[in-house]
Amino acid sequence: MAEFDLAVRGGQVATGFGTVRCDVGVKDGRIVALAERIADAAQVVDAGGLLVLPGGVDSHCHIEEPARGGYVGAGEGEPPLTVNEETFATASASAFAGGTTSVVCFIPQWKGFGVWDRYVDYRARAAKGMLDHSFHQIISDPTDAVMDEEVPRVVAEGVRSLKVFLTYEPLHLSDAQYLRVLTKARELGCLVTVHCENYAAISWRTEELLKHGMTAPKYHAWSRPPVVEREATHRAIALAELVDQPIQVFHVSCAEAAEEIARAQARGVKVWGETCPQYIALTAADMDRPGFEGAKFMCSPSPRTTEEHARIWEMIRRGTLDVVSSDHCAFSFAGDKGKGQNGRSAPFRDIPNGIPGFAARLPIMFSEGVSKGRISLDDFVRLTSTNPARLMGLAPRKGMIAVGSDADLALWDPAKKVTITNALMQHAIDYTPYEGLEVTGWPVTTIRRGEVVMREGKVQAEPGTGRFLPRAPYDFIRPRGVVPNGFDPAPAPR
Amino acid sequence: MAEFDLAVRGGQVATGFGTVRCDVGVKDGRIVALAERIADAAQVVDAGGLLVLPGGVDSHCHIEEPARGGYVGAGEGEPPLTVNEETFATASASAFAGGTTSVVCFIPQWKGFGVWDRYVDYRARAAKGMLDHSFHQIISDPTDAVMDEEVPRVVAEGVRSLKVFLTYEPLHLSDAQYLRVLTKARELGCLVTVHCENYAAISWRTEELLKHGMTAPKYHAWSRPPVVEREATHRAIALAELVDQPIQVFHVSCAEAAEEIARAQARGVKVWGETCPQYIALTAADMDRPGFEGAKFMCSPSPRTTEEHARIWEMIRRGTLDVVSSDHCAFSFAGDKGKGQNGRSAPFRDIPNGIPGFAARLPIMFSEGVSKGRISLDDFVRLTSTNPARLMGLAPRKGMIAVGSDADLALWDPAKKVTITNALMQHAIDYTPYEGLEVTGWPVTTIRRGEVVMREGKVQAEPGTGRFLPRAPYDFIRPRGVVPNGFDPAPAPR
Amino acid sequence: MAEFDLAVRGGQVATGFGTVRCDVGVKDGRIVALAERIADAAQVVDAGGLLVLPGGVDSHCHIEEPARGGYVGAGEGEPPLTVNEETFATASASAFAGGTTSVVCFIPQWKGFGVWDRYVDYRARAAKGMLDHSFHQIISDPTDAVMDEEVPRVVAEGVRSLKVFLTYEPLHLSDAQYLRVLTKARELGCLVTVHCENYAAISWRTEELLKHGMTAPKYHAWSRPPVVEREATHRAIALAELVDQPIQVFHVSCAEAAEEIARAQARGVKVWGETCPQYIALTAADMDRPGFEGAKFMCSPSPRTTEEHARIWEMIRRGTLDVVSSDHCAFSFAGDKGKGQNGRSAPFRDIPNGIPGFAARLPIMFSEGVSKGRISLDDFVRLTSTNPARLMGLAPRKGMIAVGSDADLALWDPAKKVTITNALMQHAIDYTPYEGLEVTGWPVTTIRRGEVVMREGKVQAEPGTGRFLPRAPYDFIRPRGVVPNGFDPAPAPR
Amino acid sequence: MAEFDLAVRGGQVATGFGTVRCDVGVKDGRIVALAERIADAAQVVDAGGLLVLPGGVDSHCHIEEPARGGYVGAGEGEPPLTVNEETFATASASAFAGGTTSVVCFIPQWKGFGVWDRYVDYRARAAKGMLDHSFHQIISDPTDAVMDEEVPRVVAEGVRSLKVFLTYEPLHLSDAQYLRVLTKARELGCLVTVHCENYAAISWRTEELLKHGMTAPKYHAWSRPPVVEREATHRAIALAELVDQPIQVFHVSCAEAAEEIARAQARGVKVWGETCPQYIALTAADMDRPGFEGAKFMCSPSPRTTEEHARIWEMIRRGTLDVVSSDHCAFSFAGDKGKGQNGRSAPFRDIPNGIPGFAARLPIMFSEGVSKGRISLDDFVRLTSTNPARLMGLAPRKGMIAVGSDADLALWDPAKKVTITNALMQHAIDYTPYEGLEVTGWPVTTIRRGEVVMREGKVQAEPGTGRFLPRAPYDFIRPRGVVPNGFDPAPAPR
Repeated sequence: MAEFDLAVRGGQVATGFGTVRCDVGVKDGRIVALAERIADAAQVVDAGGLLVLPGGVDSHCHIEEPARGGYVGAGEGEPPLTVNEETFATASASAFAGGTTSVVCFIPQWKGFGVWDRYVDYRARAAKGMLDHSFHQIISDPTDAVMDEEVPRVVAEGVRSLKVFLTYEPLHLSDAQYLRVLTKARELGCLVTVHCENYAAISWRTEELLKHGMTAPKYHAWSRPPVVEREATHRAIALAELVDQPIQVFHVSCAEAAEEIARAQARGVKVWGETCPQYIALTAADMDRPGFEGAKFMCSPSPRTTEEHARIWEMIRRGTLDVVSSDHCAFSFAGDKGKGQNGRSAPFRDIPNGIPGFAARLPIMFSEGVSKGRISLDDFVRLTSTNPARLMGLAPRKGMIAVGSDADLALWDPAKKVTITNALMQHAIDYTPYEGLEVTGWPVTTIRRGEVVMREGKVQAEPGTGRFLPRAPYDFIRPRGVVPNGFDPAPAPR
Repeated sequence: MAEFDLAVRGGQVATGFGTVRCDVGVKDGRIVALAERIADAAQVVDAGGLLVLPGGVDSHCHIEEPARGGYVGAGEGEPPLTVNEETFATASASAFAGGTTSVVCFIPQWKGFGVWDRYVDYRARAAKGMLDHSFHQIISDPTDAVMDEEVPRVVAEGVRSLKVFLTYEPLHLSDAQYLRVLTKARELGCLVTVHCENYAAISWRTEELLKHGMTAPKYHAWSRPPVVEREATHRAIALAELVDQPIQVFHVSCAEAAEEIARAQARGVKVWGETCPQYIALTAADMDRPGFEGAKFMCSPSPRTTEEHARIWEMIRRGTLDVVSSDHCAFSFAGDKGKGQNGRSAPFRDIPNGIPGFAARLPIMFSEGVSKGRISLDDFVRLTSTNPARLMGLAPRKGMIAVGSDADLALWDPAKKVTITNALMQHAIDYTPYEGLEVTGWPVTTIRRGEVVMREGKVQAEPGTGRFLPRAPYDFIRPRGVVPNGFDPAPAPR
Repeated sequence: MAEFDLAVRGGQVATGFGTVRCDVGVKDGRIVALAERIADAAQVVDAGGLLVLPGGVDSHCHIEEPARGGYVGAGEGEPPLTVNEETFATASASAFAGGTTSVVCFIPQWKGFGVWDRYVDYRARAAKGMLDHSFHQIISDPTDAVMDEEVPRVVAEGVRSLKVFLTYEPLHLSDAQYLRVLTKARELGCLVTVHCENYAAISWRTEELLKHGMTAPKYHAWSRPPVVEREATHRAIALAELVDQPIQVFHVSCAEAAEEIARAQARGVKVWGETCPQYIALTAADMDRPGFEGAKFMCSPSPRTTEEHARIWEMIRRGTLDVVSSDHCAFSFAGDKGKGQNGRSAPFRDIPNGIPGFAARLPIMFSEGVSKGRISLDDFVRLTSTNPARLMGLAPRKGMIAVGSDADLALWDPAKKVTITNALMQHAIDYTPYEGLEVTGWPVTTIRRGEVVMREGKVQAEPGTGRFLPRAPYDFIRPRGVVPNGFDPAPAPR
Repeated sequence: MAEFDLAVRGGQVATGFGTVRCDVGVKDGRIVALAERIADAAQVVDAGGLLVLPGGVDSHCHIEEPARGGYVGAGEGEPPLTVNEETFATASASAFAGGTTSVVCFIPQWKGFGVWDRYVDYRARAAKGMLDHSFHQIISDPTDAVMDEEVPRVVAEGVRSLKVFLTYEPLHLSDAQYLRVLTKARELGCLVTVHCENYAAISWRTEELLKHGMTAPKYHAWSRPPVVEREATHRAIALAELVDQPIQVFHVSCAEAAEEIARAQARGVKVWGETCPQYIALTAADMDRPGFEGAKFMCSPSPRTTEEHARIWEMIRRGTLDVVSSDHCAFSFAGDKGKGQNGRSAPFRDIPNGIPGFAARLPIMFSEGVSKGRISLDDFVRLTSTNPARLMGLAPRKGMIAVGSDADLALWDPAKKVTITNALMQHAIDYTPYEGLEVTGWPVTTIRRGEVVMREGKVQAEPGTGRFLPRAPYDFIRPRGVVPNGFDPAPAPR
C-alpha cells in the first residue's frame, strides 16, 4: 500500500509568506507531509505551473436558510415558511467551482421562537451537502429562555459565533438586546458578528422615499447612505468595548465605517472588519440599470462608488479589513428578486436583499486584487482563507497548508482568462451580478480533504459528504494592564 | 433730564477682542453709547479698576421645573408631581450674585402629556422671577399630536430649541423618536440640544452594579464611563448629519466625546459642544467621600479625573467646546439628594442627578481659566456669555456690550480672592459642591437692563421683573455645494 | 467747535459678533464714541444701507522692497540692486481702493549684509506712502553680528516679527539657522512667520523638470507639489514646538499642510495659519494658459485645484486658517514677469514668483466667502482685519471698531456687482490675475484715521501721511502645567 | 545512507499561523520535508515539549565595524581608525546564544572615502564569523563618484539596502543628499533604511545643556526629546513619498514617531517601522543611575518612559511597528562607554551611543511579549524573524520554516525562567543593560543550516562558517492608479 493516498506534485505552494516549490502528501484526508518530493502515492495530481493554495473559506454566506417572511419584503400574505433556494447541494457545487471548500453559514432565529430546533434542523440540512461547514447562530429575540437555556446548548455543540443585526425589520436588536448578546458571548467564549446599519435611520429614509414615489431599485442606495453604516459601526464597537467582547463587523462597504474599525483597533479594541467582492466590483449606479434589472445588484449595505472601491482597497492594504467573504444570499430574478418586473410593481423596500457570490468571490478578488497589482498573493490567501479560518476558530484544520491540516486545496492557474457567466457559477440562482466580467486567474482544481471535487469546472462530489466543523471556545484575553474607559474591570461586575 | 439714565464709568470694557477703556451710556435699559466720556447721566457707577463684562448667559439650567417623578429615582410610590426646589426668585438671586443676567431653562414634557399647558404654566412661573429668560422645550414623547400641533404653537411663541435626552428612564428617546425631533426642528427652524449618554449601556451597568451590592454614590461614575458618552455623542451627530439639522451637545465631560464633535466639525457638520464647571473642577473621586457625602457631587455625565480636566481645557482652547453653562439642577442634601444618609439606604441609582451651580459658574471659570492662565479674558467672555447668547439667538440683545444691546453688565474685580461658601451662592439649596474652593476674580456689581441688581453681594431686584426672551427662527443654511454622504438632497425627500 | 471731527451715520457697524445699527464718532483720527446718534460733527459720512467694517489689515505683502537679485531668477548677470516696482504710493492707492488701511510688509536682509541699514532705508521709503504700516524683518543670514546686535536694535524700534523662508535659493535657512531665529525671537518677544516649502525637494524636482525640457510656466506647479509644503510645515512647527516659540505659517495652499497646523493646535502648540485669495480663486491650470500667460498666475506655494479650494474653505471654517492676506508681490508682465514671452525664452525657474493682490483681496474674499454663503460677515472681518491686527499686535488700535481705536473704516455695499479689471486695482502692475472675475460686494468708501481716503473708487490721500506702527513685545506664556515632549523646561536650558 | 541528515522531532512547529505538531527533515542544510513523522535521519534532535521556531533574524546590528572616529565623541585627537570591539566571532556566539541565526549589519562609509574598499574589507571580516550575514551600505557622503560608480558595484554584489542617518555629526545627510540616495535606490532596486532624528535640533539642545553644565548621562534624553524624532520621521517619509521610494524607519522609540508611520501607511505610502527591545524595557530614568552607570543605557533615540513602552506595544499590535531588531552597537564600560567614570570627566555628548543586545533581543521580546500576554507567539516570530527576513529580501531562505528554506531553527522552552546576566549574553562587551532582568521563555538549542550551533547555552560552531547572503533587487511597484500629490509620474521626470 502506498505511503500517501494522494500527492499534489510540482506546484508553487502558498506558505502565507510567499510560495515555495514543494509537493503535498495526503493521507486520510489530511496533509501529512510537505516535501521536495513525495514519491509513493496512490493518486497523483500534477500541479506543475499552478499555484497550490488552501481551499477558500467563506465565513459569511446564507444557504438553505429557512425563513419566516425573509429579511425584507415580508408582508402579511407571505407564506409562513420559506427556505432560501440555494441548497447545500447547489451551494457546494458553486463553492467548489470557485475554489472554496469550507463555509460558515447561519442558523436562523425567528422572533418568538427558540434556537435548538433550528440548529437540529439546520444540521440535518447541511449534512446533505458536500461542503465542510460551521454555523453562526443568528439571535433576533434574546429572551431569557433562549439566552440562558437554548443558546448554551447550541454553543456547546461547537457553534461559537452569534450573529446580530442592527437593522432589518424582523431581525434588528435594540442596544439592550445587543448588550445581552455581548455579555452572553463573553461568558460562553463566542465571537459576535454584526450587521451594522442604523435601523431607525433607514426606516425613516425609506418611508420618505416611498412617500415621494421614489420606489425604483436605485433608491435602495439612497435609503442607506454611508453615514448610517458608520453610525451603527461605531455603536456596535463602543458597546463591545464596554463589555470587552470581541466582534467582527460584517460587510464593510465604505471607508468611513472602516475608519471606525481602524480607530478602535488603534485604541486596542478587539474588532475585525470584513468586506465582500460587491464592495469593490459593484456600484450604486448598477441599481439604476433599465427596467427592473437594478434589483439584481441590490444588497445591504448598498454598493457604493468607484471612488469608494479605491478606499476599500486601501483599507484592505492597511489591514483594517482582513476578511473577504461572499455574503452569498441569493434569490432568482424569476422569483422574488424580480418581483417588480414585467409590469408588476414592487418598491425597492420589498425586494429581498442579497446577491449570489459563492463561485465569483475568489476569482474576482484574485483578478482585481492580485492580477491588477493591488494586493499580493499572500494578501489574497489571508483575506479569503487563512484569516476567516483563524478568526472562526477553524485553523489550523482549515485555511492553511500545514502538516496536520485538512487537505483542502485549490489549484490556481494565475494566467487563465475567463469571462464570468452565470453557468460558470454553478449555483441555483438564475443570474450573477458579475455577468460578463473578465477575470485573470482561475481555480482549475479543487480538493476537499484529499478528494478531487472539482476539475476543470466539473464538480464530482457525493452529496452528504460535507462535514460539520465544531469550534472550540474563544479565549480572548485582554492584554494585561489595559483597562478601558477608566473602569477597572477587576472589582466591578461584568 | 439727563441724556443717560446710567453711566458706567472708567472701566475696562470687553469688546470680544481685548478690553478698551471707555464709558457705557444707558437709556431705557439699553446701551445707547460707548464713549471715552459719558458725562450727562442720572446715575453713575464707578468701574475704575474693574472689568466691565457682558452679564453672563447661562444657556442650560433647571429652575422650578415641575416633574412627574423626576429624572431618576422615580419609583412607584413617588408623589405624582414635584417641583424643583430652586424657584425663579431664588435662582435669580443666585445668578445675579454670580454675575449672570440671562438664562435658558427647560419646559418639561411628561410621557403621555402635551407641551402647551406646560409652556403656559412655565411662562407664569418664570414671570415671577427677576432673570431674563428663554426656554428649551424638552421632548420626551414625540407623538403626532405633540409634534404636529403643540410644538409648533410653543415654537411660534419664540421657544426655538428642542431638548432631547438619549438616556434617563422616563425621558430618553429612541433613534426613531430622535429623528422625528430632528426633522421637525429643521422644518420649524429650531436648534436641537442633546444629552448624550447611551441609555441601554447605563441601565446594564447599573443593574450589574446593584446586583453585586455596589450601591454607594461612587458607583455612579462606574455606571457611565466615557465610552457611553462617546457612543451617544457620535450617534446624535450622525443622525443630525443625515437630517442636516444643527445640534448642540450638552455637558461634554470627556475628551473622547469632544473628539467626536471635533471630527464632525472638521467634516463640516453643524454641531457645537458645551461643557460645565463640574467637568474641570470636580472628579469621580469626590463621589467617594465618607458617608453619603459623595451624593453631593453626583451629576450626569459623571465628573471624571484631573487628567480629563486638562483635556477639557485643551478642547476649550481648540474651540471644540465653545459654551460653558452651569447645568444647574439642584436638590438639597436635607431632601432628596441626601436620602441615603443617616442610616437610611438609597442606592446611587435612586439619588437625583444634578448639582447647584448658578453663582459658582463664572467665578470658577474666571479663576481656573483666566487667573490661572489657561484661557484669555476674551475666551472667558465668549464661553460664558457671547457664545451662548449667539447660539441661542439672543444676540445682539444679550451676550455683548454694543450699542443697542440690553445693558446687562457684570463688573469684575479680577484680583479679588474669595473662598466659596454656600452662603455666597444665594441659592435655595443647602450645599454647594464647591465649598471651600478658593477663587481669584469675583463679580462685584451686576447690572440688568440698566438696573443695579447686585452690589458687593447684596441682591436688590424686584420679583416679577424678569422678562421672557422670545427667539427668532434659526436659518441654518448648508454651504452651497456641500452634499453629505453621497446623497444629493435636492431631488430626494427630506 | 463741533464735538466730533467726523460722524459716520446710519450704517450697520461690525462688532465681531454680528452688526449693530449705530453711528461712529471720530475725533483726532480715533473713534471716541459709538452711539445710536452722533449729532454734533464737523463732517458727516452717510453710511445708510452700507456695512461699516474696520479697514482691512494686510499682514503679508511686499512693497518697494529692495532686492539683490530677487527671490528667484537671480543669475550672475542680474543687476546688483533692484527695487520692487510697487512703491508705497502706488500700494497705498491700491490698498485704499480695496478697503485696506494698514499693512505689514518686509524689511529685506541680503546674505552677507546686516539689517539696520535696511530698516532705516525702508522706514524712509514707507514714510512716503499713505498707508499705516508695520514691518516683518526678513532673516536670511542669521550671523552673530546680525542676531545679537542688529536685530535687537530693529526689534526695539517696534518690529516684532521675524520672517524666515525655508525655500528660495538666496533666502532659505537651514534648520540650525531657523532654530537660531526661533530662540532669539523667544528672547526678544517676537513672532516668527514662516514660508514653508522644502528647498531641497523643490530644487531636485526643478532640476529634473528642466533636464527633461519641461520649462513652461505650468511646470512650476509640478516642481512643488503639496507634499513639499506639508513637510516644511510640519518641520517648522516641530522645531517651534521644541523651542516653545509661537509661529505663523504663511500662505497655506493645501489641506494637508493645514492639517499639520490643526494637529499641532490640538496638541496645544501656538501656531497660526494664513491663506491668501489665490488659494481659493486660482488653480494650477491657470499656469497652462496659451503662450506665456501662465506666468501671470505663478506664485509660491503654487495655486492648486478647485477641489483643494473647497478644502481650504473648510479649514477656514474650522478656524485652522484664521488670517487671509494678499501676499502681494508683483512684477509687471511687460517686465520680469513676462520675460519668457515674445519669442524669448525663460524657464519657469527664472520667472519671479508672486502676484499682485492688494485691491483684490477683500472683494474676492467678500464675494466668494460672504456672498456665496461659505463664511459669515463676522468671519470675513476677522479673517481680513481683526485677526491679522491682533496677531501682529496692532489691536486694539487697528482691526476693530471700538472706542479708542484708530478710525480706519471701510464702507461696503454688499450688493454691488463689479467685474474686476486691472484699472480698478489701481496698482503699479500692468495686470491682475483676477481680470474678468465678477464679484458681489464692494468697498465704496475708505476712511483712514478719520480721513476719507477713497470714495467711489477715487483715492484722495496725501503722500507722506502713512504712519509707522511700532509694536510691543509679545508675551506668549505657555499655559501652566503644560510640558511638551516630556521635557520639563523649568530646570533645563532654553 | 539516511534520507535525512537531521530530523527535529516532536516539537510544536511555528507556521506563522499558530503551531502544528510535526517533524522537520533536513538535508544539505535545508529543510526538505515537514511531516508527521520523519524516520530515517542520520541525526535526531528531540524537540518534545519545545517550540520549534525559525532562527531569529536581526536586521539591524553593528559588528566589527571600522570607524574613523566613531559615531559620536570623535574629537581631533582620536585615533584615525578604530574597529567596533564586537567581532564577527563574538557576535556569532552571542547571536546563537540568543536564538538568532542571521544578521544584517553595516558597511561603513567615511566622509571623503568611497565604499567599494569598505565592502571588500567588510566581506573579509564577516567571512571569519559563524553567522549568515547580509549588509546595509551606509551612505554618509553621496558624491557622484560614490553614487554613480561605487554604489552600483556594491549593490550588484547583493547589498540591497542603503542606510542613511539624519543625525550624528560625521554621518548625517542633508535633505538634498537624502533625496539623492532615495532616487539612486529607486533606480537600483534597493530599500533605504533611515535613522530619524533631527541633527540641528539635537545639536542645539546639546550645546545648551553643556553650556549650563548639564553634562551627566541623563541629559542625553533631554538632548533629544520625542519631537526631534517625530520631525525627522515625518520628513524622511515625506521625501520618500515624493520620490516614491520605500523606506524602513529604524528604531522607533515613541508613539508620536510611530504615528507618522501609521499615517503614511494609511495614505498608501510604502514605509515600515522597526523598534528595539530597549524601547520596551529601558527608560530615560536608567540613565540617571548613580555615578556614571547611566552611560550603560545610552543609545539613540533615547529610551523613554514606561508609559511610552505601553504605547510602543500598542503600535506593535497595530502592525505599525513590524520588526524588532537589536540595534546591537556596543562599547565596553571599561573602555569608551565608561570613559567618564573614575574621576575622569566626559560629558554625555562624548559617550559613544549604543548598547549590546544580540542575545537579549529574543528572550526579552518573548518574555515581555508572549509570556506576559501582550502579543501572540505568531507576532513574536513575525516581528523577530519572518518580517525582517522578508523585508530584507532574505525570505523564503531565512525567517520561516518551509520546504526549501535553510534549516535555521531555534528550539524554545517557553516555560524556562532565566535571570539575565552578562555571562549569558556571550558577547565581547563587559556589561549588559538588562543585568538582573528575569525572563520566562528561553532558546535551548540553536540550529544553523542543519547544524546544532548552540545547545543549553554552549556554542559549538566553527569560525569561518558564516555565509554571505546576497539579495535580489527589490521590485516595489506602486499599485496602479495611485498618483501621489497630484503629480502624474508618467510624463514627468523622476
